[in-house]
Amino acid sequence: MDKLLLDTLNGRKRQRIPIWLMRQAGRYLPEYRALRTRAASFLDFCYTPELAVEATLQPIRRYGLDAAILFSDILVIPDALGQRVGFVEGEGPLLEPLRTSDDIERLSSARAAEHLAPVYRALELVRAALPAETAMIGFAGAPFTLATYMIEGRGGTDHHAVKGWAYREPESFQCLIDLLVGAVVEHLCRQVEAGAEIVQLFDSWAGVLPEEQLFRWSVQPMIRIAEQVRGRHPGLPVIAFPRAVGPGILMYRRPEAFAALSLDTGLGAHWASQHVLPHIAVQGNLDPVLLLYGGAPLEHEVNRIIDKLGTGRFVFNLGHGVLQQTPPEHVAQLVDLVRRRDLPSGQI
Amino acid sequence: MDKLLLDTLNGRKRQRIPIWLMRQAGRYLPEYRALRTRAASFLDFCYTPELAVEATLQPIRRYGLDAAILFSDILVIPDALGQRVGFVEGEGPLLEPLRTSDDIERLSSARAAEHLAPVYRALELVRAALPAETAMIGFAGAPFTLATYMIEGRGGTDHHAVKGWAYREPESFQCLIDLLVGAVVEHLCRQVEAGAEIVQLFDSWAGVLPEEQLFRWSVQPMIRIAEQVRGRHPGLPVIAFPRAVGPGILMYRRPEAFAALSLDTGLGAHWASQHVLPHIAVQGNLDPVLLLYGGAPLEHEVNRIIDKLGTGRFVFNLGHGVLQQTPPEHVAQLVDLVRRRDLPSGQI
Repeated sequence: MDKLLLDTLNGRKRQRIPIWLMRQAGRYLPEYRALRTRAASFLDFCYTPELAVEATLQPIRRYGLDAAILFSDILVIPDALGQRVGFVEGEGPLLEPLRTSDDIERLSSARAAEHLAPVYRALELVRAALPAETAMIGFAGAPFTLATYMIEGRGGTDHHAVKGWAYREPESFQCLIDLLVGAVVEHLCRQVEAGAEIVQLFDSWAGVLPEEQLFRWSVQPMIRIAEQVRGRHPGLPVIAFPRAVGPGILMYRRPEAFAALSLDTGLGAHWASQHVLPHIAVQGNLDPVLLLYGGAPLEHEVNRIIDKLGTGRFVFNLGHGVLQQTPPEHVAQLVDLVRRRDLPSGQI
Repeated sequence: MDKLLLDTLNGRKRQRIPIWLMRQAGRYLPEYRALRTRAASFLDFCYTPELAVEATLQPIRRYGLDAAILFSDILVIPDALGQRVGFVEGEGPLLEPLRTSDDIERLSSARAAEHLAPVYRALELVRAALPAETAMIGFAGAPFTLATYMIEGRGGTDHHAVKGWAYREPESFQCLIDLLVGAVVEHLCRQVEAGAEIVQLFDSWAGVLPEEQLFRWSVQPMIRIAEQVRGRHPGLPVIAFPRAVGPGILMYRRPEAFAALSLDTGLGAHWASQHVLPHIAVQGNLDPVLLLYGGAPLEHEVNRIIDKLGTGRFVFNLGHGVLQQTPPEHVAQLVDLVRRRDLPSGQI
């Protein structure tokens, strides 16, 4: 059976616009909150295939989305490299921050694949359980975003530590990025071997870097990863999501590396229709805040985005993840709106 | 005597690139921290002309910058409209949030000019004390950013409340924006009448809005303000700083309203040299994190920015305010670097 998302990414003829949502699984779903109580910690949850599989499938059952994305976390990579990662309820991830190049040298990928075996097992089980028309997405954090968590010790900081390191000691920062490129390539390839048909790279913090640094620490490492993964798995679609990079997104328009670029809410659909869509498939970029309220404002913006971007190779998604306070019925409204839309004229 | 900043904004021939810095006065300066102890609260400080004047002049004495910007705060406007504003040490501003359209109706600009008289008095005194070559900048928060603080009650939130209000009740949100347009116009005109030669509008939170909302709640109100202020003060240069709007910055390229656009660090100097500078003067956009470290990385990036943008009408500034932890000697290094630079070839 044809998979709509794969057809869209590959530029094949299709009947409607595919839709999946970043963080489509998770805390806004009551069935997830019930499931979550069955593991002591968030990482334990991710490393228990039975639980990760069930969390991944919950939104597929509810909404029949066009893709499942493995329920996991980008920080399994630092965890697998030997850096202690914890998740504090209501605070997000906390890591013992790297402070010197010695701390980088102590990281090791020797046991990463073994450490992450439950993740690959979960992916295998999800793939086997998915409806035939649903695509399976694997993912990883991009090196700069992983380095940010590893050096800052948490998200939501002012990024002084990670940017300061990159500015003052670019050689040792490059060592960390290179180590992460290798670990991410391996993690993505294992996911593909377990059944992922598409992979997405999340560079959530790329937007804090000025242009030249953005090229060195985000664009280049993401291209290297995509090329290496595609070297081992020819034709694999790689979606890049460098968040909040503004017009810096133009540097990622590299069809030989990426099948699509995922746009955050700040990148205007009109602008993207002129500057991104002619070059590469686009995914995005509804404001997740609209899902808190649903109704007419949601419908208006969904239609506006499809009018602008639906004329090309376009995957409907959010500009950022589903918010925890989202009423699940608004997600149903969104999926229905996108499903019912005819493709705008001009559609290939 | 000619003022370099005014000459640059007006497109007149000049010998070097003007420089001033957002938050050039304030907590990173030891002389400011000593002065700050002389007022009980931050707003008391802003409303005491003697103290505001001294804080404004401190960085001019140290660095001989090309402009002074009045030491004040964008939240004097909600304060003057009758909304309680407090500043908590280490936490930033806290306001009693607006929750209903009744809360908007209770705001009143009737006594705003009287309430803000000490601000205008301070500006008069600064202008009288400035060296002849130093330009005097007044400023205000743009309506969307003021509305964000007024509805969220603080900065650094997820912006759900303000965006939700704008999405669900655009009519009452428009009433608030209109009220703020009027208050900002009045505040800026009074500053001009007290001696400001340039005004800057800060839309610090504009970047959270998708394109269509950005146009309605940031671009349009800022243009209305600029046009009304320039209607009363013909030829007045207005600098717009819509922060983190990415390619949305293109919507602000309106030379009939704005003399210059101030760019945040995320807008690449190379991209801006192609898409912004040919249309309107540019101000920006050094990463303030570079001032924490100084040295060669600072010099490299200063030169890169000037290479890209110094060929046109360009004002050197940061992409965001000076950070509190900045060593004052690095600001001296920056000013010296910009002063010593010859203008790139092609300079008008």
